[in-house]
Amino acid sequence: MERRRRIGSPERRAAPLDFDDVIYGIHTVDEALEAGERLRAIHISDDRKRDPMMRKILDNAKAAGIPVRFEERTWFAQLPYKAHQGCVALAQPYAYASLHDVLGKHKDGARLFVILDHITDPHNLGAIIRTAESVGADAVVIPERRAAGVNATVRKAAAGAAEHLPVVRVANIADTIRTLKKANIWAVGADAGRESQDMVEADLNRDLALVMGAEDGLSQLVKRECDFLVRIPMHGQTESLNASVATAVLLYEVLRQRRPA
Amino acid sequence: MERRRRIGSPERRAAPLDFDDVIYGIHTVDEALEAGERLRAIHISDDRKRDPMMRKILDNAKAAGIPVRFEERTWFAQLPYKAHQGCVALAQPYAYASLHDVLGKHKDGARLFVILDHITDPHNLGAIIRTAESVGADAVVIPERRAAGVNATVRKAAAGAAEHLPVVRVANIADTIRTLKKANIWAVGADAGRESQDMVEADLNRDLALVMGAEDGLSQLVKRECDFLVRIPMHGQTESLNASVATAVLLYEVLRQRRPA
Repeated sequence: MERRRRIGSPERRAAPLDFDDVIYGIHTVDEALEAGERLRAIHISDDRKRDPMMRKILDNAKAAGIPVRFEERTWFAQLPYKAHQGCVALAQPYAYASLHDVLGKHKDGARLFVILDHITDPHNLGAIIRTAESVGADAVVIPERRAAGVNATVRKAAAGAAEHLPVVRVANIADTIRTLKKANIWAVGADAGRESQDMVEADLNRDLALVMGAEDGLSQLVKRECDFLVRIPMHGQTESLNASVATAVLLYEVLRQRRPA
Repeated sequence: MERRRRIGSPERRAAPLDFDDVIYGIHTVDEALEAGERLRAIHISDDRKRDPMMRKILDNAKAAGIPVRFEERTWFAQLPYKAHQGCVALAQPYAYASLHDVLGKHKDGARLFVILDHITDPHNLGAIIRTAESVGADAVVIPERRAAGVNATVRKAAAGAAEHLPVVRVANIADTIRTLKKANIWAVGADAGRESQDMVEADLNRDLALVMGAEDGLSQLVKRECDFLVRIPMHGQTESLNASVATAVLLYEVLRQRRPA
């Protein structure tokens, strides 16, 4: 559970940090403050507090009543990020949904889940949540490890959709696919390989979970669990699409096939 | 021509900077170096050169033979960016195509242009170029002003597609639409308004230019030039999609309609 490992600076009794709720870098923290994000705390490096951008952050934090702690440079060494720039903030934790609850809620029409097999870029995750909400999906499922959690950057990129669409975080994607299959939901993997059907020719008008990998594709373990694979037609020299773009193209093909004739 | 305004520091005879080719911020410059980008020069603030991230940038620049200049803090004040963090690099200029040349090149099948009315986010522009190349579009057209140019960040997000697909930069989007219409290319604006046709019901199997606005939609001036408007079906509470996602959904609907039966 490396992503949930907690750190702190016990000698100062600082609140422990959950990496999923951490945003870092001067510009990102500045953006979160400007967006009115209710940050729980901001940690700033002692030797950077006179930097003009940092002063802006300090002013905004003060105006918003957000506590600021000044830390020694060594404090930042425990973070898994190099690009923290001596500025780290702790956002409100996101309220994930449970797979059980989402499965139990019956919606009109065919069911639609989006399973993300290790999307690490928060802007992509946010854009995917936004698109999934727009096509009326039941939920987005993400893994606990080696993937972006729903942090402030994700929520911003999702433009409010993370507040409307359930996001489920699971320990194991392959297990989750098996659970969904037991509930008669087809697992459809997105894959550029030869064994995949063209998305327009595949039958997507049924209860399904669309399984998306990161840019290097689905892992073998996850691919084996899929009932069938689909591919997006590619007519150029580029081999793949951006992950949020590929997910959107497939989700809108599902939606088109489900339109009443 | 605000985006092409040139600046410099004459007392040091520095090369002038064209803002379109400038990348800024410690992390962005670090990423460009790591990606092997052939930067023309890097400018670093005197008072930041002992920062660990900056030292990494200096080491990488030295290894790649890229000239580095140390500047006083005042030098950075002339930049239009606040988030430069005392680190600015000059990338190779991108070789834009001319609209005349692109129009003159006849391809098989119906023509497809993507016109972007002021997309400011470089990741969105890059993802759009990547998708446009993947659907076999003729070119992407961007405005000179109030929009991202094809800089290093855009090229990285385009994953090589900016080297294959012509990108045309024009002074005036409305004029360009008129030029395309004279060449019998229909201008199809993306708009969420009531007067728009559902994209699946619209006839997109013809020579066309898809005109995309930023997230706040098309400007009235540009909308007036469009032959007709299309909208993406939305079934959630989110009002719009990410700009690169929306462009991809529409481009793949064009491609689907053009498939041989």
